[in-house]
Amino acid sequence: MNDAVSITRDLVRCPSVTPADAGALGVLERLLKDAGFEVHRVTFGEPGTADIDNLYARIGTEAPHITFAGHTDVVPPGDEAAWTHGAFSGEVKEGFLYGRGAVDMKGGIACSVAAVLQYLADNGGKPKGSISFLITGDEEDISVNGTIKLLKWCAERGEKFDHCVLGEPSNVEVLGDCIKIGRRGSQSGTLYVDGVQGHVAYPHRASNPVPDISRLIVALSDEPLDHGSAQFQASNLEFTSVDVGNTASNVIPGQARAKFNIRYNDNHTQESLRALVEERLAKACGNRIRARIVWEYSNSNVFVTKPGAFTDLAVSAIEEVTGRKPELSTSGGTSDARFISGYCPVIEFGLVGQTMHQIDERTPVSDLEKLTKIYRGVLERYFG
Amino acid sequence: MNDAVSITRDLVRCPSVTPADAGALGVLERLLKDAGFEVHRVTFGEPGTADIDNLYARIGTEAPHITFAGHTDVVPPGDEAAWTHGAFSGEVKEGFLYGRGAVDMKGGIACSVAAVLQYLADNGGKPKGSISFLITGDEEDISVNGTIKLLKWCAERGEKFDHCVLGEPSNVEVLGDCIKIGRRGSQSGTLYVDGVQGHVAYPHRASNPVPDISRLIVALSDEPLDHGSAQFQASNLEFTSVDVGNTASNVIPGQARAKFNIRYNDNHTQESLRALVEERLAKACGNRIRARIVWEYSNSNVFVTKPGAFTDLAVSAIEEVTGRKPELSTSGGTSDARFISGYCPVIEFGLVGQTMHQIDERTPVSDLEKLTKIYRGVLERYFG
Ligand SMILES: [Zn+2]
Ligand SMILES: [Zn+2]
Repeated sequence: MNDAVSITRDLVRCPSVTPADAGALGVLERLLKDAGFEVHRVTFGEPGTADIDNLYARIGTEAPHITFAGHTDVVPPGDEAAWTHGAFSGEVKEGFLYGRGAVDMKGGIACSVAAVLQYLADNGGKPKGSISFLITGDEEDISVNGTIKLLKWCAERGEKFDHCVLGEPSNVEVLGDCIKIGRRGSQSGTLYVDGVQGHVAYPHRASNPVPDISRLIVALSDEPLDHGSAQFQASNLEFTSVDVGNTASNVIPGQARAKFNIRYNDNHTQESLRALVEERLAKACGNRIRARIVWEYSNSNVFVTKPGAFTDLAVSAIEEVTGRKPELSTSGGTSDARFISGYCPVIEFGLVGQTMHQIDERTPVSDLEKLTKIYRGVLERYFG
Repeated sequence: MNDAVSITRDLVRCPSVTPADAGALGVLERLLKDAGFEVHRVTFGEPGTADIDNLYARIGTEAPHITFAGHTDVVPPGDEAAWTHGAFSGEVKEGFLYGRGAVDMKGGIACSVAAVLQYLADNGGKPKGSISFLITGDEEDISVNGTIKLLKWCAERGEKFDHCVLGEPSNVEVLGDCIKIGRRGSQSGTLYVDGVQGHVAYPHRASNPVPDISRLIVALSDEPLDHGSAQFQASNLEFTSVDVGNTASNVIPGQARAKFNIRYNDNHTQESLRALVEERLAKACGNRIRARIVWEYSNSNVFVTKPGAFTDLAVSAIEEVTGRKPELSTSGGTSDARFISGYCPVIEFGLVGQTMHQIDERTPVSDLEKLTKIYRGVLERYFG
């Protein structure tokens, strides 16, 4: 049973809530070995984190090399009693396949595996190049023992990828409406403002950091970081918290702090972005306000796969099956594509994300069939 | 030993850190009974608070009736090992009397008792009117079982006060530099701003309350509440805290809150002040920001004893002893005078406040002698 619906159901029935694998990678291992792939199961861990199973499988030795990436781990089901059909049942009812991971992203992986198996069957069991699968069990949680380490492991083995399709649920409303070709970078920091503590009855002897940090928050929130770029919407800075923690109503506090997160586009690098914010902060402080930013470590750099031959090929395969011309989007949160982009151009295309992470996560069976056709179309064009 | 230095020392040796009395009121009770006062010891308490000893003593039955008010409780000594002389020793060294409460305000009480005893001794044991003492043991902490209840108790007995001298340390640098004739009111509140929670990657689906509350803090901090009045400096609003408590760096929070305290002058009543701030808030919010204020209960209303015959009499007594013409001030924090002002005109005049609440609190012995003479001068003029 190598069709996408069967594979999706087999995967959904493994309750692989991060960090558990629960047999999910074994489902893929069997299918790919049977099709002639060289399959590696690789476990990563480090102190303070759970060991994580990952899988790398390749068939073919030549270029061009296309890799299908994904994750078999899922977020927790929430209140299982609230599901119409069991959260790990993979039940098919009225044209929908139900279960945690159905769209994010066991369904996407299943379609890519089914498409590759069909393609190989129809082409003498060998691609005109190489096809691989890069599957992690650590995407939904801390993402420490997953794609980052698996890519490094591959690089050390001499693996070279030419292009990658990541099967995350990229479509917003309907299959074919959206390919993600990039993601904004993410950078968090904490702004500290120092004042001089004192008594509210004697404000001239104190310096209140609360109105000062408020001025800085307004200044940094109001001035746009840019006005977007060819592929991206505008970068955005959001203050997510401001805190003093002073419970004494007669005391002017000595310090205030505010946390912020920036989603930034390809007008910036991490370094230039930090410099820009520091410069605006210095301007807003003038000679009076004493403030500083402590930047958090971030590996969520901005990336983009520029529209070209590879995206054209994907758009053409999508149009052929769905009749829709997908938007080449860079909006939304982060994904493992930010790590893959350091090794080769990557696009994200999978199922429709509407029910992901929710009770009754489900995908139309017809979408599984169409997505399989689309991936098949990508392979035909890629090796054609 | 009815001189001010002896009485101060006897009081300081009672470690009457609120709520403890430690014998302090007993010292006064004995002295006043011996001088012919009718002395009442009154204990107040309520669920959740410590019982507090208070004292009311009166001599004479006629008007005019002057009352000397004060508190025998003191703040904790802090690190007792850091004191040059014992915190409760009452030791006299190189012209200074040391100890917690020496200036705030056992010294002031001692001077008023010494002055009254002298005045009575020189005037046949009876005043031409009435003299009373209104002494509480609950001023430095929550002030719930002290002056407020003692005044109510007196009113229920039919006691009527014409004027009050509260012996708090009113002088800033040197004895005679300052009489307090009023105090600003104090009003605290919490400002809440409601937004819409969301993910930082999708800010258009959220509404961030952090920049919004920051705008309101700036607006309310920047516009002066007034420009002062004949007796008062300008009213002032200080934000003492702003808090969200959001630890998730990818989440735009749903609510922010900020605490503030206002010290306000006689341009306002509590009601008009609240209305003014609400009006400015509404203006700053426009149609967009959803904010509200929760006002704290406050019994710290503004009061002022207008300059006139009673303040003239005090100024004259001070000038005669010190050669200084005191400022009639309304600056600084709150005192029990705010409660007394509801019953009769009240002024505050006592020792020099510089060392109050500190390690090595101390008063020059010469100040105790001069303050006794000043109070004596007040009595002469009052009944003259
Ligand atoms: Zn996912
Ligand atoms: Zn005091």
